[in-house]
Amino acid sequence: MNSDFCSKNGVITMVPEIDEGVSLERIKEFPLEKLLGMAIKAEIGAKKFYESLAERIDIQELKNKIEWLAGEEGKHEALLRKIYAEMFRGKEVVFPKEHIGPELKPVERELQGVQDLLELIRWAMKAEEIAAHFYEGLIDMVDTEEKKRLMRYLSDMEKGHYYTLRAEYELLLDWEMYSQMMHVGP
Amino acid sequence: MNSDFCSKNGVITMVPEIDEGVSLERIKEFPLEKLLGMAIKAEIGAKKFYESLAERIDIQELKNKIEWLAGEEGKHEALLRKIYAEMFRGKEVVFPKEHIGPELKPVERELQGVQDLLELIRWAMKAEEIAAHFYEGLIDMVDTEEKKRLMRYLSDMEKGHYYTLRAEYELLLDWEMYSQMMHVGP
Repeated sequence: MNSDFCSKNGVITMVPEIDEGVSLERIKEFPLEKLLGMAIKAEIGAKKFYESLAERIDIQELKNKIEWLAGEEGKHEALLRKIYAEMFRGKEVVFPKEHIGPELKPVERELQGVQDLLELIRWAMKAEEIAAHFYEGLIDMVDTEEKKRLMRYLSDMEKGHYYTLRAEYELLLDWEMYSQMMHVGP
Repeated sequence: MNSDFCSKNGVITMVPEIDEGVSLERIKEFPLEKLLGMAIKAEIGAKKFYESLAERIDIQELKNKIEWLAGEEGKHEALLRKIYAEMFRGKEVVFPKEHIGPELKPVERELQGVQDLLELIRWAMKAEEIAAHFYEGLIDMVDTEEKKRLMRYLSDMEKGHYYTLRAEYELLLDWEMYSQMMHVGP
């Protein structure tokens, strides 16, 4: 199901950066080539999402963290491209239209307050969590011990991102404290 | 139980940087002031451990990650000192002799190959995992919603560290691949 809308606490909110993707259960339906294409597409999307989000954040500490996440996703993209090139020698990466979990897209508008930021971080957390499970699912689908190891690596890295985001999210919920801690505002 | 030895796969190894601490179950036996002292001590120890470990690592990527962890622990120390100062106004932080889980100490020797590095990362993972549970345990012991939030923050950050380390650990297990990926060696 593709949708530009999400329902949270009974309130329908439009989040233009998010497209809900196909469910994780459907992984087995796709050939590995397509799954790697989906993974590369997801890493590119996440990188652009974090880059554009960082540009819109004034809090230096948080900006740094989000930029760091963008850099990490860039490295994952490169790693996956290597694996793809090795497995499907000479073939161009095909980016399928499907994607697993929420697809992150660049944030092209100014953020309207902390609620807006929280909403985006919540989606990023969901995307990271699903990515972690996605790579876990690929462990059984790739052929060599080396590739399985890389999938475990990617899965753990995304879990690390998930908890890093969740930590920030937790603090941002108390904006007054957060801004005091981060020396934001007057 | 304090011990400079650990048993792994039936082999007794001396790991001079590690002291096994008191178990997590004993948290409730200590007053909050002492627990915060233990937490600050642990963060200082972890910071020194990561700093000294980073100095002994030649692989730039991994060195950066470990240095980043050292910086994070430094920030946690500062945050905990703030909480302590607010709760026990005018009191110097007392560092108890007890510590929860493995106590990380500076690495003062040259690392002897990847097995040595793996052993240290394994202990760091254990320390991060226990720290995450430790802070979770403190959520119910601190008095305000703000402090509970900070404990959740610290707990999630340590979980993030745990998975970051686990990801690296996973790759390091295949040293040949790791060194290829990280462009190490000749």
